[in-house]
Amino acid sequence: MILVNGVAAVSVAADDRGLMYGDGLFETVLFIEGRAPLWSRHMARFAAGCARLLLPAPDIDLLAREATHASAGQTRVVVRITLTRGVGPRGYAMADAPQPTRIVAASPAPIVPPDWYHSGVRVRECTLLLSEQPRLAGIKHLNRLEQVLARAEWNDADIAEGILCDAQQRVIGATAANLFAVIGGRLVTPALERCGIAGVARAEVLAHRPDCQVRDLTMTELMQADEVFLSNSVRGILPVAALDDHRWPIGEITRALQAHWRVLGLE
Amino acid sequence: MILVNGVAAVSVAADDRGLMYGDGLFETVLFIEGRAPLWSRHMARFAAGCARLLLPAPDIDLLAREATHASAGQTRVVVRITLTRGVGPRGYAMADAPQPTRIVAASPAPIVPPDWYHSGVRVRECTLLLSEQPRLAGIKHLNRLEQVLARAEWNDADIAEGILCDAQQRVIGATAANLFAVIGGRLVTPALERCGIAGVARAEVLAHRPDCQVRDLTMTELMQADEVFLSNSVRGILPVAALDDHRWPIGEITRALQAHWRVLGLE
Repeated sequence: MILVNGVAAVSVAADDRGLMYGDGLFETVLFIEGRAPLWSRHMARFAAGCARLLLPAPDIDLLAREATHASAGQTRVVVRITLTRGVGPRGYAMADAPQPTRIVAASPAPIVPPDWYHSGVRVRECTLLLSEQPRLAGIKHLNRLEQVLARAEWNDADIAEGILCDAQQRVIGATAANLFAVIGGRLVTPALERCGIAGVARAEVLAHRPDCQVRDLTMTELMQADEVFLSNSVRGILPVAALDDHRWPIGEITRALQAHWRVLGLE
Repeated sequence: MILVNGVAAVSVAADDRGLMYGDGLFETVLFIEGRAPLWSRHMARFAAGCARLLLPAPDIDLLAREATHASAGQTRVVVRITLTRGVGPRGYAMADAPQPTRIVAASPAPIVPPDWYHSGVRVRECTLLLSEQPRLAGIKHLNRLEQVLARAEWNDADIAEGILCDAQQRVIGATAANLFAVIGGRLVTPALERCGIAGVARAEVLAHRPDCQVRDLTMTELMQADEVFLSNSVRGILPVAALDDHRWPIGEITRALQAHWRVLGLE
């Protein structure tokens, strides 16, 4: 089911700026039996994104009602909420009083192989290097061609994700997940001031583990880590078992965060 | 008039990847009394963009028919041609056989104050710095949030454009135009291998003036230039008269290119 500005619909205006320029934001929220445990974190990021893009902040209660309506009766559903700057004007200049377009679309949650949680996933290193744009870093905007091109680098169902670095060979994350590593007993995740998306699952990990270091992380450090895992609001905590021929063990910190996810009701 | 996959329409599917990820390309083609003198250059860039984004190349003859149909009966019209990767699948991975969405939309050409051509325009320097992404540089893709944010930096109708630099303070262009400068008698335009859009008007200038140097250009050099002008396929050749308190004269090379534009029938 799709709601466009609150009305069941299948389409949006062909001159919506979301389509013309990628001028907007989105969130993909996992609902399990009508509950979305990470909802507040999604809405916090959404509001931060609106401020960054100079978009009027959406009515959070209205979004909650629409997301609940769209996902009703389904056990595991992903609700994608998209907010664009709406129709026109043509050209990059914004309207003085934009009328944003709100799209709330529910679809069945993807099925993740259970073995990925138990035995970990294989990843690869993407050749595409993320660009640095502090004005857009962290938020979940609609300009996602870098992720699309990075994800197109492989077509092997056994490889769950691709690791993305910037041009300085700093690890930033994966195409659709954030990355954590345990290095010398300390939990570390890349700083995302220059590029990358600050995931809501990452925010949950950081809140649960305030000792986690947020800093630059090199590929060399990553290869020497004791544990590596990915976080994603829909897929949860995925241990990383291998990158090409390199293997990491699945350690206690990863397992503890998977347990935390179960406590949250996100399994 | 808007044609979506050849059929008159006002909307596109809400789960089109053009809207979900900015996963596509566009061209804005000026038609004057049914003629589009830069058509071949638009189609060359479009094809190059498709190759870069791994999109199936569109049928150029079909696009020409649809653009002609959409613009029929209007004297000066801008036809925006958008090509997206079409509907689904959800997630960044592409379908094995995508069914692209083709949107051909005609709207009246913008009215440019005649004085801008005669006396030149005022510009400003944007604080937003363009990010470097060689994989996306040059092509006219749908990820245009940098341009939207840069254009939002001013709201003064007397300022025609904003100059955009990269983080190394190299001049790249304007928010919706390419930039040329005459330095020591030589015509120069910024190299666009790292960022920026390689405009079709720029391509026409380069074809007409094969002596033009394509190279990195600093803001310091720009301020010392003898002439500066902007090129845009819809607006044509706009002399730049001033940036803040700095003024440039309008010189012979700029006037000669304006004359070339008239010869092409682009006035």
